[in-house]
Amino acid sequence: MNKMENREREAGGRLFTVLEEDGATRARLGVLRLGHGDVLTPVFMPVGTNAAVKAVSHRDLEEIGFDLILGNTYHVYLRPGLDVIRGFGGLHGFSSWNRNILTDSGGFQVFSLAPFRKIREEGVSFRSHIDGSSHLFTPEAVVEAQHVLGSDIMMPLDVCTPPGITRGEALSALETTTAWARRSKKTWLGLGPGAGKLFGIIQGNFFEDLRGRSAQEILELDLPGIAIGGLSVGESPDAFRGLLAGTARMLPKEKPRYVMGIGTPGYILDAVENGIDMFDCVFPTRIARNGCLFTGTGRLVLKRAENHGADLPPDPGCGCPVCKRYSIGYLRHLFKAGEILGPMLATYHNLYYMKSFLDKVRESIKNHSFAGFKKDFLSAQSGER
Amino acid sequence: MNKMENREREAGGRLFTVLEEDGATRARLGVLRLGHGDVLTPVFMPVGTNAAVKAVSHRDLEEIGFDLILGNTYHVYLRPGLDVIRGFGGLHGFSSWNRNILTDSGGFQVFSLAPFRKIREEGVSFRSHIDGSSHLFTPEAVVEAQHVLGSDIMMPLDVCTPPGITRGEALSALETTTAWARRSKKTWLGLGPGAGKLFGIIQGNFFEDLRGRSAQEILELDLPGIAIGGLSVGESPDAFRGLLAGTARMLPKEKPRYVMGIGTPGYILDAVENGIDMFDCVFPTRIARNGCLFTGTGRLVLKRAENHGADLPPDPGCGCPVCKRYSIGYLRHLFKAGEILGPMLATYHNLYYMKSFLDKVRESIKNHSFAGFKKDFLSAQSGER
Repeated sequence: MNKMENREREAGGRLFTVLEEDGATRARLGVLRLGHGDVLTPVFMPVGTNAAVKAVSHRDLEEIGFDLILGNTYHVYLRPGLDVIRGFGGLHGFSSWNRNILTDSGGFQVFSLAPFRKIREEGVSFRSHIDGSSHLFTPEAVVEAQHVLGSDIMMPLDVCTPPGITRGEALSALETTTAWARRSKKTWLGLGPGAGKLFGIIQGNFFEDLRGRSAQEILELDLPGIAIGGLSVGESPDAFRGLLAGTARMLPKEKPRYVMGIGTPGYILDAVENGIDMFDCVFPTRIARNGCLFTGTGRLVLKRAENHGADLPPDPGCGCPVCKRYSIGYLRHLFKAGEILGPMLATYHNLYYMKSFLDKVRESIKNHSFAGFKKDFLSAQSGER
Repeated sequence: MNKMENREREAGGRLFTVLEEDGATRARLGVLRLGHGDVLTPVFMPVGTNAAVKAVSHRDLEEIGFDLILGNTYHVYLRPGLDVIRGFGGLHGFSSWNRNILTDSGGFQVFSLAPFRKIREEGVSFRSHIDGSSHLFTPEAVVEAQHVLGSDIMMPLDVCTPPGITRGEALSALETTTAWARRSKKTWLGLGPGAGKLFGIIQGNFFEDLRGRSAQEILELDLPGIAIGGLSVGESPDAFRGLLAGTARMLPKEKPRYVMGIGTPGYILDAVENGIDMFDCVFPTRIARNGCLFTGTGRLVLKRAENHGADLPPDPGCGCPVCKRYSIGYLRHLFKAGEILGPMLATYHNLYYMKSFLDKVRESIKNHSFAGFKKDFLSAQSGER
């Protein structure tokens, strides 16, 4: 038994254990002990909006090796509805996924998708983007909904704000977020020991002092994990890095740290460097459906004319069944012809790429060489083709 | 080694060998020896229009067990074009499919898809449905195109006619079809021994005497296999059965017989009963993409309200990974939510169902019980749900 396995065993019933630290950076390798198995961190979570990761089967997700995926509470609450999912004993039974699921609170979707919304102290009322029907999300209802979903990790309802608002607006959103987090915790404590783990979410928009205040208030609740919300919402990379570093430094070392909504290798490297353990984003699967593939030398845009008829694998360094079997020219043809197989194969590749990328990130942390890995990775990315 | 294997070995280099006859019906079990492996008949061929069977990967087609699929010459000639496919050494290399491919002549697509077409003695000129560009298909060019594609079985250019035309129109189409078949054979003979097998196509519309004349003229060419074209184009089931039985009786026993464009279990049972060996149709994959699944008790229409939240497998008697893993309620949800995974899983199931159905058909012929199998199968089909 090696050192890492020993440490894992010692971790016992704890949710999260740091197994190794990079040393030169704040990057760390850890393990999450969840209801449906262990998850090594840093981890990228594919997004399964409608109880399905778009264009990829659960069998393929298992084959790639994902053991934690994200589900959107807002979407499955609206369709098929909690009653249907309750009838299957939760999202795992409904979607036949026997590994871990993290669900978000639906807050971000209410603020980005619903055609109408109104925040009150009680919660947020909104109309469905599907049929216009009226709904109310309260912190209590959202925790209970995620309990019905059987989520392994659940998130509290928060107020998401875009960049460019006033300090007063940001403060008001922060205060509501803290008050809702307290109510969420109370409901969560009432669920009993079998419930998923509730994380706290730090907000504060792009005001450093408000980030500090939010962190302090959320950390006081001593929830099992901490998320940094409100980043990657259109701000500059420098603004992202600055606030990420500042907020991450305030977080206790022993808890898992999750930055919501990031999914490019570059952003993930920045986050890992700052000691972040978990990430999710639709980006890898969304660009796949538009014919854009991650590769070791930069993004490959299949529809570009120069890729017509190209008899080369998409990424010669990739071991996925798509790169081993198909050529750039054939994949381009599938997208030009509007064949569903194009998005299917591109999605498989991009998810395999992300999984493999995080495997390498963890390996570099284990070898105390994360900074060198990051530098080498970025310098090999020579632009789009 | 069992009797069937012995007979297969004895078949040596011949294209087609009848291994077993049902006896009570004209149904027969056979084997096609093709360039990319043996194929047991009766066989259903999935249709890969754009060098891809819609919504299913080649790996999944292999897993299901298909060893012969169809490609559309018209589509791949227009896009990506023969030059691209030549660069990959043919359709097999281009699409990474190492089993057999039958390509049609493109005639049916010219008559059904192209926005403009004109038949002359030389061939048929038409405009592309993709970009309106002008093209000419001659019998010679179509055989040469399929040779570039590397097809294991190729079809000659023919004139496809709809039901309801006059006898004079049908006769004219027949005469052109025969003349083109003769020219196709001449070109095919010039290709050398490595070329795919050219089948003849019997036309004659719905006039029994013209079918007879077409059969006589096509059979005189002594091509490796015989197809019956122009059926399943909107005629009544009785008209289909009548003409199929009449035409099939004229065919020599030792050649493989192919009815183009049929793909429902019911039509296939009629065809097998009349000694037909090969079938293709987009139907199983097309209805799958609309959420309609074949089952042992009839078609399952996922979008029906009664299937909301149903916690049952689509077909309890089916051994496919979709039926073993997912519920009707979850699959219905995928279609309601517009998730690509819906068409993916439904396609997998319908193709698995067809493969498994043909396995059972062959087994019943081997056991000389085809008529009983057909009767039991049809009586178990109790309608849509």
